[in-house]
Amino acid sequence: MEYPTKLIEQAVHEVAKLPGIGRKTALRLVLNLLRRPEQDAKDLAAALEAVRLHTRYCRVCFHIAEAELCSVCANPARDQALLCIVENSRDVMAIESTGQYRGLYHVLGGVISPMDGIGPDELNMAALLERLGPATEVKEIILALGATVEGDTTGFYIQRKVQEAFALLALPSALKVSTLARGLPVGGELEYADEITLARSIAQRISY
Amino acid sequence: MEYPTKLIEQAVHEVAKLPGIGRKTALRLVLNLLRRPEQDAKDLAAALEAVRLHTRYCRVCFHIAEAELCSVCANPARDQALLCIVENSRDVMAIESTGQYRGLYHVLGGVISPMDGIGPDELNMAALLERLGPATEVKEIILALGATVEGDTTGFYIQRKVQEAFALLALPSALKVSTLARGLPVGGELEYADEITLARSIAQRISY
Repeated sequence: MEYPTKLIEQAVHEVAKLPGIGRKTALRLVLNLLRRPEQDAKDLAAALEAVRLHTRYCRVCFHIAEAELCSVCANPARDQALLCIVENSRDVMAIESTGQYRGLYHVLGGVISPMDGIGPDELNMAALLERLGPATEVKEIILALGATVEGDTTGFYIQRKVQEAFALLALPSALKVSTLARGLPVGGELEYADEITLARSIAQRISY
Repeated sequence: MEYPTKLIEQAVHEVAKLPGIGRKTALRLVLNLLRRPEQDAKDLAAALEAVRLHTRYCRVCFHIAEAELCSVCANPARDQALLCIVENSRDVMAIESTGQYRGLYHVLGGVISPMDGIGPDELNMAALLERLGPATEVKEIILALGATVEGDTTGFYIQRKVQEAFALLALPSALKVSTLARGLPVGGELEYADEITLARSIAQRISY
C-alpha cells in the first residue's frame, strides 16, 4: 500500500502492532481519527500512554493495580478464606462482573504449556505457594482455569504442589480444592453441545 | 464489565470509540499494550497524536497531505490531462498501489446519498467543477466511484454538471468522460459471479 504521508505510514505501522489488527484495519482506524476533532486524538494518545506508564501489578495477587495492592486485595471486606486461581486479569474481570464471588484471586499470568515453553517457573507459581504456606488464612482454593489440557495440567500441578508442601510440614492439609463446574452453558441446547461436555454433564449430574 | 483500575477503564473507553472496535476488543488491545515495553505505548500515542495534528487535506484535490499540496499534486511528472475522481483517500491509495495510473485525482469526500442526507454541497464538488473550468488542462475525467447506486448517481451528476458548464460558455465539450470497467474480477469464476456483473461483462465484452 502506498501511504500518502509519512505520518500516516508511521501511525498505521504502530497501530498494526496491536494483536488482531492488520494494516488495512489500522489504516481504517487512523483515517477515522483524522475525521474526528483533534481533542479525540489527544485523549486517545494520553489514555494509552497513561495506562501503560501508571499500571502495575498487585504485589500479592498479580492482578492489574494502580497502587501496590489491587482493589480486591486492598478491600478488607473480601473473604480471606477463599482463593480463586486464574490465568490472567481478564478472567478476574469476568468473575468480578458476575458479582457472585467475594473472595481473593491469584493471577498466574498463563498456564503450563510445554509446547509453548511455559513451565511453572514462567508463572506466578512460587508466590502462590508462598500465599498458601502454613500461616495462610485460605481455606479453599478454586481452580478457575480454562477447560483445556493446559488448564487441567496447571490445576493438577497446583494440587500436587500444595499436597507436597503440607506433607513436608507433616501437617494434615485442611485446604479444600475445587474447580469450576463443567457442563452445558446456560441457554445451550443439548444437540449443539460437544460429546465431551455432554458426557461430563451427565457424569457430574446434580441431584435435586 | 468491572475494570480493575480507572486508567484501564479510560483507555478502553477511548479505544472503543474507534469504528468496529467494541469494549471487549478494546480491553484486549489495552492489556496487550501493558505487556509490551513502555516505549511501544509512547510510540503509539505519539504517532496517533502526530498524525491527527499534522495531517491536512490537499488544497487542490482534497487527498491527505502534509503540506498545502499532496504528494500527487506536487509532483510535476504526473499527467495533468487525466483526472481521476474518487470517493475518498483510501481509493487514491488503492489506485496508487496498482502503479498503473500517472494522472491526478480529485477526492469527493463521499458520494451523493439522499438517504444519508449527503448532497453535492456536502462533497468537494464545487472545487471539482472549478478545476474543470475553461482554463483546465484536463482532457479526460475517470469516474472511479463504487459500482453502487450512489456511485452511479454521483457519476451521472458530475457528467451533467460538466456538460452544463460547457453549454453555458457555448463551447463544445472536449472533455472525455470514462468510468472504471465493470466485469468479472480477475480470478473470478463465472458460476460465482452475480447476474448483473455477468450481464454487464457480456454486454461490454472486449473484442480481440
